[in-house]
Amino acid sequence: MALIVQKFGGTSVGSIERIKKVAERVARTRREGNDVVVVVSAMAGETDRLISLAHEICKVPDEREYDILVSTGEQVTAPLLAMALKSLGIKAKSFIGFQIGLFTDRAHTKARIVKIETDRIKKELSEGAVVVVAGFQGITEEMEITTLGRGGSDTTAVALASALGADLCEIYTDVEGVYTTDPNICPRARKLKKISYDEMLEMASLGSKVLQTRSVEIAKKYGVPVMVRSSFVDAPGTLVTKEDEEMEKVLVSGVTYNKNEAKISVTRVPDRPGIAARLFGPLAERNINVDMIIQNISHDGYTDMTFTVSKEDFQKALEIVKETAKEIGAEDVIADTEIAKVSVVGTGMRSHSGVAAKMFQALAREGINIMMISTSEIKISCVIDAKYTELAVRTLHDTFELHKEGGRIEEER
Amino acid sequence: MALIVQKFGGTSVGSIERIKKVAERVARTRREGNDVVVVVSAMAGETDRLISLAHEICKVPDEREYDILVSTGEQVTAPLLAMALKSLGIKAKSFIGFQIGLFTDRAHTKARIVKIETDRIKKELSEGAVVVVAGFQGITEEMEITTLGRGGSDTTAVALASALGADLCEIYTDVEGVYTTDPNICPRARKLKKISYDEMLEMASLGSKVLQTRSVEIAKKYGVPVMVRSSFVDAPGTLVTKEDEEMEKVLVSGVTYNKNEAKISVTRVPDRPGIAARLFGPLAERNINVDMIIQNISHDGYTDMTFTVSKEDFQKALEIVKETAKEIGAEDVIADTEIAKVSVVGTGMRSHSGVAAKMFQALAREGINIMMISTSEIKISCVIDAKYTELAVRTLHDTFELHKEGGRIEEER
Repeated sequence: MALIVQKFGGTSVGSIERIKKVAERVARTRREGNDVVVVVSAMAGETDRLISLAHEICKVPDEREYDILVSTGEQVTAPLLAMALKSLGIKAKSFIGFQIGLFTDRAHTKARIVKIETDRIKKELSEGAVVVVAGFQGITEEMEITTLGRGGSDTTAVALASALGADLCEIYTDVEGVYTTDPNICPRARKLKKISYDEMLEMASLGSKVLQTRSVEIAKKYGVPVMVRSSFVDAPGTLVTKEDEEMEKVLVSGVTYNKNEAKISVTRVPDRPGIAARLFGPLAERNINVDMIIQNISHDGYTDMTFTVSKEDFQKALEIVKETAKEIGAEDVIADTEIAKVSVVGTGMRSHSGVAAKMFQALAREGINIMMISTSEIKISCVIDAKYTELAVRTLHDTFELHKEGGRIEEER
Repeated sequence: MALIVQKFGGTSVGSIERIKKVAERVARTRREGNDVVVVVSAMAGETDRLISLAHEICKVPDEREYDILVSTGEQVTAPLLAMALKSLGIKAKSFIGFQIGLFTDRAHTKARIVKIETDRIKKELSEGAVVVVAGFQGITEEMEITTLGRGGSDTTAVALASALGADLCEIYTDVEGVYTTDPNICPRARKLKKISYDEMLEMASLGSKVLQTRSVEIAKKYGVPVMVRSSFVDAPGTLVTKEDEEMEKVLVSGVTYNKNEAKISVTRVPDRPGIAARLFGPLAERNINVDMIIQNISHDGYTDMTFTVSKEDFQKALEIVKETAKEIGAEDVIADTEIAKVSVVGTGMRSHSGVAAKMFQALAREGINIMMISTSEIKISCVIDAKYTELAVRTLHDTFELHKEGGRIEEER
């Protein structure tokens, strides 16, 4: 008998019919003799509906109130699933954050889980109940309701799996697993059987919407095996797990893209020590994540700074940066929202060279200009004009022969 | 500077535009220098939407899960109103049950408030914030979410007013106050300036939808002055308050009707001591409120028992009663959902006689058959065929001349 955490995303619980299907899936796992904890997202479209209500009230809603509002999405799905399970003769109880002691920090709208009290869940499991948890939300020590950001239910699931010492965390979603790239863009995309935490982390943070970054970080930190699989098709998914030898042989595992970033450039910044801190400090204070940062070489004591933020944070970031730019005597602030970030990811890069050059050549062959470049041990990202996104993805997928299983390494032999 | 509790019902917060209007109303009260606690209902239609989701899953939803589900309705409105207040420059914070320690008993779907911890609210008020509370819900000591039944937000408001020692509890609704009867049925209906708790209690429990019964009971018990007024029209409402001399002079204050009950008759019940307890015990255990009960005289050791329950409880009640009827050897169970209860209410009845006779005569003149009669110190109710409801109401309103201010007593002089 195993303890399994199953998470179902928004489209998986997008209608009453689908919630009933999910109940059948959970019931099967339970009847096989497993203890089951289920984490659910809001029904597809519900979170957006709630957000638009907030935006009808005011342009920049108070974040504390926003969290109380949007956390209701999951609070609707969880009891509906528990009811559906009961209809199938399965004992089930649903819970929201405060009831099971799912504590987070105080960063409203993008809080991080700091502690999960497992007593209540363990008690319910020991009494034979399936425990259904509303994902995406928690409470602070001061009993304030918080949410974990888009995709936060993944994090709820992995954090629960870790806290409970679960044998497996299954993420049921609307795709069959993790692909070499987005199959909607590239028909030759191939489903991966296995992927390392680090690769998944780069894929997730680079825009592949399969798993929330934070959830993969927690899975990696605590060694939680995560299976990504389809709610709709009964097929094996992709196992996100520890790196092994086989993985290291692979040069590039996937190509990802992200159209949800915007670029901000601050021109003619006086190049003094501490100027970067001066520019990015106020953004960090407001909990705005800056992704890529580029600082060009200095001319006459002035430099240009360019960075990207998510489109959600863009307006807020722009206001803050304009303010700071004035204070530090920069010339101008230039924004561009029509950009995309295209990346190649692979554990094998750690021990193989030449991937970057190959990527740049492939993009150049198609006449795609590269605006920004950033690299890590296992990924290379380029910011390009958004209109070339699909072309770039397909070109890179072909260049690294990702349609072939294991074919990604052949070139290097 | 006073402490005022303001409650806004579902139609008052039925759209974003209306929530903004409510915010303006609250802001005005706050700017006049008052401390303000606001209680909100779910946006009109939202609770019904949630209930129908539950019913799509299963016919009789688990009540614990049902409460988690439907409590989200108010949890959406409260933060939206707080956001709207902030947009107007008013400091505001919203709270749900567990955050302010609003404790109830364990009777899911119709819980009663047992304790309100006022520390958190008082702290926020002292810091100058308007406190917005999600109505209709609370938590048990075991941290289970409960709801207070239809109209429960009224009770939340009055209970908060009582716990906080508020100077006034204003109930903003879609009517301008308490009328002598339903103006939709009887165009001559007149708005009352004042009504006693007891009269309001009878009016509320008899089907006038202005205030939840429980809220009036609490108001009476703790002497909370309650003003019922319109969210849409800036006009004086009706004050629900302690009985005074002026009120006692009035024979009949209002005519009410209730089409939301159903009648169940158990025929040829063996007439033994304890048989009523045997019949109604199981209903009480399941938290089903029985309204009128009639037991006819016994023939040959057998009697007939007839009673009414709300239509929501009807199916459940019928199942239970059929079971019990079999066990106690009754002949049959007959149900009728096409009934209405029509009542006249007035504090003056305590000291004046002849009201009942006058009521029966008036109904007889119109050929309306009376199926059941029940009386209290200050009201007389008759169950009639539902199709005569409107006719009966208009007839009684005319008979007691309720269109005339104070006219109700003239006849007795």
